[in-house]
Amino acid sequence: MEKVRFGIISCAGIAKKRFIPAITGASNALLAAVASRDPEKARQFASDHQIPEAYGSYKTLLNQKDIDAVYIPLPNGLHKEWSIKAIEHGKHVLCEKPLAPTQKDCEELAAAAKANGVTLMEAFMYRFHPLTEFVIRQVHNGELGDIHAIQACFSFVLNDPDNVRFQPDLAGGSVMDVGCYGINCTRTFFNEEPEAVSAVAHYTKPCVDDRMTIYAKFRSGKQAQIICSFSSQAPEGYMISGSKGWIVSSNGFRLGVEHGKIIQEIDGIRSSFEDATNEYTKMIEHFSDCVIHKTAPRYDAIEAGRNMAVICAAMESAEKNGEWVRLK
Amino acid sequence: MEKVRFGIISCAGIAKKRFIPAITGASNALLAAVASRDPEKARQFASDHQIPEAYGSYKTLLNQKDIDAVYIPLPNGLHKEWSIKAIEHGKHVLCEKPLAPTQKDCEELAAAAKANGVTLMEAFMYRFHPLTEFVIRQVHNGELGDIHAIQACFSFVLNDPDNVRFQPDLAGGSVMDVGCYGINCTRTFFNEEPEAVSAVAHYTKPCVDDRMTIYAKFRSGKQAQIICSFSSQAPEGYMISGSKGWIVSSNGFRLGVEHGKIIQEIDGIRSSFEDATNEYTKMIEHFSDCVIHKTAPRYDAIEAGRNMAVICAAMESAEKNGEWVRLK
Repeated sequence: MEKVRFGIISCAGIAKKRFIPAITGASNALLAAVASRDPEKARQFASDHQIPEAYGSYKTLLNQKDIDAVYIPLPNGLHKEWSIKAIEHGKHVLCEKPLAPTQKDCEELAAAAKANGVTLMEAFMYRFHPLTEFVIRQVHNGELGDIHAIQACFSFVLNDPDNVRFQPDLAGGSVMDVGCYGINCTRTFFNEEPEAVSAVAHYTKPCVDDRMTIYAKFRSGKQAQIICSFSSQAPEGYMISGSKGWIVSSNGFRLGVEHGKIIQEIDGIRSSFEDATNEYTKMIEHFSDCVIHKTAPRYDAIEAGRNMAVICAAMESAEKNGEWVRLK
Repeated sequence: MEKVRFGIISCAGIAKKRFIPAITGASNALLAAVASRDPEKARQFASDHQIPEAYGSYKTLLNQKDIDAVYIPLPNGLHKEWSIKAIEHGKHVLCEKPLAPTQKDCEELAAAAKANGVTLMEAFMYRFHPLTEFVIRQVHNGELGDIHAIQACFSFVLNDPDNVRFQPDLAGGSVMDVGCYGINCTRTFFNEEPEAVSAVAHYTKPCVDDRMTIYAKFRSGKQAQIICSFSSQAPEGYMISGSKGWIVSSNGFRLGVEHGKIIQEIDGIRSSFEDATNEYTKMIEHFSDCVIHKTAPRYDAIEAGRNMAVICAAMESAEKNGEWVRLK
């Protein structure tokens, strides 16, 4: 296999806006097909984006022998179901985050991928941007000294109450959809799982938060403060504070969408770094490389499950108006 | 009285670095004297800064009839004692923050000031900077829509373990010294008192935190996430998030020290504002104006007590490893 042949499950906006332009630039992957439950929609989408094949059902796409891998940009609540089906059809799976609604679900997916010998990865694209990789190196190499705290925020205003992100049966809610970034970057930069979390939320519907603030404490004494919201304006990114220096990202979760920029100050010396790399392309290339060479991806579904454990603990705490919830 | 004649109680660094350059620029105040417990130190300080009189004890200064007001930059734990003594000598008092270690202490000071007919104000200089005044107007006039959350941070590295800020008997600790800013700006911008706070701290000595993260919830649903530290590097300032827009300060608590700057985005339109005003001068002028015209200061010692109530609740929560502490 020289290039991984991808099919997209559904015509979601993120596929059009992010995945298709990204795969066009990938050296080891190509887009071979798209599937929609509506055959006409699939044909139109394929025609609009020069995709060779269009299928009128997801299952039909999964039955194609010439498809190696699928990209799943479905609503959050459908990620697990279609990841499992794709895995059982022997397809490698790159699925949008969050991979599944609980840690246990992620572990089931990991087991299914292993049993079927396929690569499964959650699409946390920001981790593949060269600036994120630089931040991770700086932090883990001790350039900022001992790391003490993070403040992170990912928030935008979603005015359509019918949006899938507000549907309880589709794993809606801001913590699930964008809070996952602040939690993921904290765990990644700290290289540690939280001991306990406290969260306070505002709900539009039962169980669907339109905003949440999360507070996490770690055994090492590190602290994280995270904001996520579908009803608030706020600059997106994170601030990492250490004993010797700090790093601030101005658009750390979508560095490639706008021109990515981070600022760091170490021992009083400030530097800024810019990089316009498309992080989706980097992610697709890494995933495809793992598929081609049968190597393990940078992070797996077990790791995605650990992120979900924190999200679920935050949701539980928010339901109890901020009561601390311990992680196992 | 055309100009308020100030005496400084002690030769603290902040008097030299901030207060003296500021009062030189004030239209309605002048610096008439300085007092130190060491007469030679007082003489040298007066000579270095062209201050007309030097006294070898604080009491001697308080006994001078030609002194209208005192500025108190003593270590935090001495603020109350010397504020009371100055008030009882009929002096108006501008005291560095925090005014006193508990809400009750602040209320006692307020009562003493009232009984003696003098003006008493805690020196929260950042509130007098034109950019802070602009932020308060934007927020309170609803320009950012409904306000949802704040993240604030004030942190620097203090390497000297003998510094007064590390002394338990002098009301040391980072939450007392710099956490007071994040708490103050949250209460000021939200125009609301927190319902409960949770905090986690790291201690260098019993009861003296060298860093703390604070999480506050409000009845209206607003949320605050605050970092303060004597052992961490971090950019200083705050981010206010609302339904229509946000404001970020890059150096919001010391806008006049460096060239002050804030950025706001409302309905997707980003603007930035710069202003190099010395906020200490503005504060001294406001205080002196209140003394001259016998008017109430913008905020009083009762208000300072409310800030202390939050600080004390955070300290209590941190002692209990983050347990929520309700405010009365």
